[in-house]
Amino acid sequence: MNSSSRCTVTLLPDKRQRMVPEGTLLQDAVRQAGIDADIPCGGQGRCGRCLVRIEKGQVWRRPNAHLTSQQIALGWALSCQTEVRGDVTALLFPEKVRERFVVSGTASLKVPRRVRPPRDPVISQYLLELPPPSLKDNLADLERLRRALASASGVKNLEIDLSVARGIHQTLVEGSWKATAVVEHALSGGSSRLVALRPGDAVGTSLGLAIDIGTTTVKVVLVNLRSGRIIDTASAFNRQMSCGEDVISRIVYSQRGDGVRHLQRLVRETINGLIAEVCALHELEPEHIDHVVVAGNTIMIHLFLSMNSRPIREEPYAPMATSFPAVSAPEVGLRVNPRASVYCVPAVAAYVGGDITAGILGSRLHQREGLALFMDVGTNGEIVLGNSDWMAACACSAGPAFEGAGVECGMRATNGAIEDVTINYHTLEPKVRVIGGGAPQGICGSGMLAALAEMFVTGIVDKVGRVNTAIQRGQESGRRRIVDTSHGPAYVLAWASESDTGQDILLTEVDINNLIRTKGAIYAGVGVMLRGLGIDARDIDAVLIGGAFGQHLNVEKSIIVGLLPDLPWDKFHFLGNTAALGAYQVLISRRMRRKVEEIAHRVTYLELVADNSFMNEFISNLFLPHTDIDEFPSVKEVLAQASLNNTQAVAVGERGGR
Amino acid sequence: MNSSSRCTVTLLPDKRQRMVPEGTLLQDAVRQAGIDADIPCGGQGRCGRCLVRIEKGQVWRRPNAHLTSQQIALGWALSCQTEVRGDVTALLFPEKVRERFVVSGTASLKVPRRVRPPRDPVISQYLLELPPPSLKDNLADLERLRRALASASGVKNLEIDLSVARGIHQTLVEGSWKATAVVEHALSGGSSRLVALRPGDAVGTSLGLAIDIGTTTVKVVLVNLRSGRIIDTASAFNRQMSCGEDVISRIVYSQRGDGVRHLQRLVRETINGLIAEVCALHELEPEHIDHVVVAGNTIMIHLFLSMNSRPIREEPYAPMATSFPAVSAPEVGLRVNPRASVYCVPAVAAYVGGDITAGILGSRLHQREGLALFMDVGTNGEIVLGNSDWMAACACSAGPAFEGAGVECGMRATNGAIEDVTINYHTLEPKVRVIGGGAPQGICGSGMLAALAEMFVTGIVDKVGRVNTAIQRGQESGRRRIVDTSHGPAYVLAWASESDTGQDILLTEVDINNLIRTKGAIYAGVGVMLRGLGIDARDIDAVLIGGAFGQHLNVEKSIIVGLLPDLPWDKFHFLGNTAALGAYQVLISRRMRRKVEEIAHRVTYLELVADNSFMNEFISNLFLPHTDIDEFPSVKEVLAQASLNNTQAVAVGERGGR
Repeated sequence: MNSSSRCTVTLLPDKRQRMVPEGTLLQDAVRQAGIDADIPCGGQGRCGRCLVRIEKGQVWRRPNAHLTSQQIALGWALSCQTEVRGDVTALLFPEKVRERFVVSGTASLKVPRRVRPPRDPVISQYLLELPPPSLKDNLADLERLRRALASASGVKNLEIDLSVARGIHQTLVEGSWKATAVVEHALSGGSSRLVALRPGDAVGTSLGLAIDIGTTTVKVVLVNLRSGRIIDTASAFNRQMSCGEDVISRIVYSQRGDGVRHLQRLVRETINGLIAEVCALHELEPEHIDHVVVAGNTIMIHLFLSMNSRPIREEPYAPMATSFPAVSAPEVGLRVNPRASVYCVPAVAAYVGGDITAGILGSRLHQREGLALFMDVGTNGEIVLGNSDWMAACACSAGPAFEGAGVECGMRATNGAIEDVTINYHTLEPKVRVIGGGAPQGICGSGMLAALAEMFVTGIVDKVGRVNTAIQRGQESGRRRIVDTSHGPAYVLAWASESDTGQDILLTEVDINNLIRTKGAIYAGVGVMLRGLGIDARDIDAVLIGGAFGQHLNVEKSIIVGLLPDLPWDKFHFLGNTAALGAYQVLISRRMRRKVEEIAHRVTYLELVADNSFMNEFISNLFLPHTDIDEFPSVKEVLAQASLNNTQAVAVGERGGR
Repeated sequence: MNSSSRCTVTLLPDKRQRMVPEGTLLQDAVRQAGIDADIPCGGQGRCGRCLVRIEKGQVWRRPNAHLTSQQIALGWALSCQTEVRGDVTALLFPEKVRERFVVSGTASLKVPRRVRPPRDPVISQYLLELPPPSLKDNLADLERLRRALASASGVKNLEIDLSVARGIHQTLVEGSWKATAVVEHALSGGSSRLVALRPGDAVGTSLGLAIDIGTTTVKVVLVNLRSGRIIDTASAFNRQMSCGEDVISRIVYSQRGDGVRHLQRLVRETINGLIAEVCALHELEPEHIDHVVVAGNTIMIHLFLSMNSRPIREEPYAPMATSFPAVSAPEVGLRVNPRASVYCVPAVAAYVGGDITAGILGSRLHQREGLALFMDVGTNGEIVLGNSDWMAACACSAGPAFEGAGVECGMRATNGAIEDVTINYHTLEPKVRVIGGGAPQGICGSGMLAALAEMFVTGIVDKVGRVNTAIQRGQESGRRRIVDTSHGPAYVLAWASESDTGQDILLTEVDINNLIRTKGAIYAGVGVMLRGLGIDARDIDAVLIGGAFGQHLNVEKSIIVGLLPDLPWDKFHFLGNTAALGAYQVLISRRMRRKVEEIAHRVTYLELVADNSFMNEFISNLFLPHTDIDEFPSVKEVLAQASLNNTQAVAVGERGGR
């Protein structure tokens, strides 16, 4: 069948076949086999929708950033970037798998490229060979195991769960008196625990899971605990969204009847769904997940643990806990090894949670000599200022506008969302970039910020957020982009005919005021911290930006609207999902676990409602970029240039801030 | 109503009333009120069947050993020992409660009269007064509690269960920021744990439970953990009895389908029934039982923990465990505080269990300078020889004959059982003592031993256990006591007309051989140990006898049949239920817990099936008292005296051995 020039491509699961010349793109073979491939990026290896798994045969993958080497090892390939080099059998993944790959990927979790096996792992695996019992040595199975383990690992005083003990004889016999002991090392003064005993040589099969429970999105990171490598990540919307979009509405919901338990069930189902999905994809056993670390804001963790969060909402805003009880997986309903312990990263206070503590760890703020500002921008905005000597934190309820809620055409940063906007100064016509490359369905946070900055610079909105309905400029062609709506005047980013929804995609004056309040609340936190601690913004050595939303931010446009302080661009570092990164570090290292607890203790919490300074700062921020334009000298310059009426559109956004 | 000479007695729950003169026995008032009182002891305050609780009014109790001062404090009284001193309201307990009181009482658990609060308790209670949270001090509830507890008790690194953490806010508010923390101290290198947080001042309400799981009987001891005092004990037959009477049949049963879980359920139900009963009686909350210690033989503990016990039965007789996993009450289904931990006293080997380890602790064998022999005689016979320097143990499967099984008229040592027998040498007529004082229903272990000894001394049986059917002596009156049955010749202890069952109560030659094999197996263990270790029986300084059956033994008669070594009577100490005593000590003291673990490690186990010496010893013991009569010089003397044909019956049993 095989010839030097012709190859047979077999496509699973339908077993469709096609003969193609060697060197043909796999994607072309798929298309020729009559399978409709929806590839929004047009075959540039960007959208990830043409994901396949090579089951058999030779292929050549063009270099591509989208796949990790681990994924390649599993046979994964993007068919638009893969050439056929012989008879090939490939599996076409179902829509759901490809969709997940598109939405999440691993891009948002920035980990070092070279991962070394952790030196001080939380979980160790020991291969034991036990002498079978005899009349002369009829020590009990459990004591036999303890003896072997003590000599293999030096671990003494091992705590053994009843459920492991019950299965011990069966396991030892099954593995012919060879077994792999999975030990969770003593943490915070406790004993070491045997979390699993697996028959035979099962060293290396132990998995760990880091979870970031966001108010909006839940992300899981599946890790090989021996090598420390990330096998995959997966995210999904927190199913609690159906009970309220922000933490306050969740607390309110939790007070009704069975509310706490219902919310707990929803987040548990979200996580269990992700576990099942990511394990199935890699053909791994959820039962082999031997340790779990969870980071999340204080309310999310209260709900995850079914703890009453009502006191958080009422003065004096004291939560039930900031360092959380150690729990086992079954106690919180996670479908992993039932002996796995679930560690929730400790919080600083009611509104500065374990996601921030983990974020500080992930961002290494606590190791910096120079002064750094850490911002986690999401539904809540948390701000940490400090260095290796001291750290202070505050939180401001930004509201969910940046995540698409409460904005006419708002949506989350998924396929179909406008993520960047440029407006031509002369024609007032926009150019938009859509996630996934198709027709737009709405606008996400970064798109909103870009649009707002562009509208401000081009004079479509003024510094208090009013839309200039009378604006006329240059050779305005076609329809006027400024229209009237029931929410006041609005700017149309995409006409109904261009959009995926059949309706105009626009930003109204009400939306704009919402966005200004949101950015105002966040920057007010920065302002209170700086002024309260007597620090000049120019002394900030680095701005570390974490959080799901943060990773899409454009520095220049964020400065123009007054969301980020006006500092040189090279001071900004986009760190992706720092909460997940920190949780991952805590998952694989005992030292990191101690470190994160130390961080939780060291951070000083500033309660913004305790005095009036926050309100004063907030009111000053209800301008673009700020009531005091001198705090934003670079914006002043941009505006001056714009008003010089250059022949070219201001180059806003063409370079991008990253 | 009240006069100097007439008093009204009101009897609950029926509210029957009766006027009686002051000084009348309460029991007479009960009888006069038309209530039928079944009091086998005839009103001597011995049987306990007339138990009542004085709800109101003045009474005078005659001094009586049957009630503890605690029971008296609860209002309990024996109506046959209580005089009316004014208008009195008394509750008549239902049959079931009185029955339990009769069967168990506290007599079998010998504890020091004066109990001091434990110096190193396993559980401590701290009354905390917390400052309520404010905006200036809005520490989380859990951290607030940790802070208060650390300053009140010095306890740091406290482990807090999720279930306690969930209720913390509610509890603190309910007690107006005053609460009682119940802490389980760090044991074997672990952390201290908060097992309960109770609103307000609840110091002193913490209870503990020591459990002795016997193959036949389960006993619970309810303890006030602050004072260390025993509140009450209760016993019941192990419901597993329906699945086999000895450990081997239980193992066999456990191998069928759902056998292990079924057996676990049965013993759990037995214990939960006792907990409910003893708590209801004292109006205490099972939820306040904060710690549980369990002693039992290795198989009973395996079944209690739902661990497979099959390997115990097969060569090389290695159990799954001898030191058991730490478990929480819900894991084993006990209805107490769900955070209570359940500690199973470690075993030495498959057939020398935690009941023996606890028994050694309770008997203080491990502290003795002189050589001591500890015997626990039950369905299994366990024997420990040693002192403070060394200890060795072995076990012999005695069989359940002493507990009434496999013997024609055998029964357990409860009401209606013949517990002692004397036979007139001249008339061959017996005199019997029946537990509870009524007509006999059968014969229990101590009665069988007494009967066997008497029959041997009077010549009714010879030294190999044959019944002398031809025996004729003196003025034999009435019917011949030696009769023929389908199980061979037999001796009648009570005629059908005298018995409660309407049938003759007798001991057949088959029964006698069964008894000889049983005593032979136990004494063979003693013999192997002594000879194996090169020790002369006369070097034994003390014989410590524990176990449910042990407490009814008569020394002299036991020596005559060859069950106990022939030593001076003052060397024998009857310690009652040493397993329960040891478990009680472990329940209230951390030092005792370490001690019992040390004992489990120190005892050397001798496997009797490993060589032939046991079988040789056993065969030598299939005689009364032994193949070598010189090992039993005092018996030789008794027999010599008997054959001198004294005019009086040999005074066997008239003095009793205790």
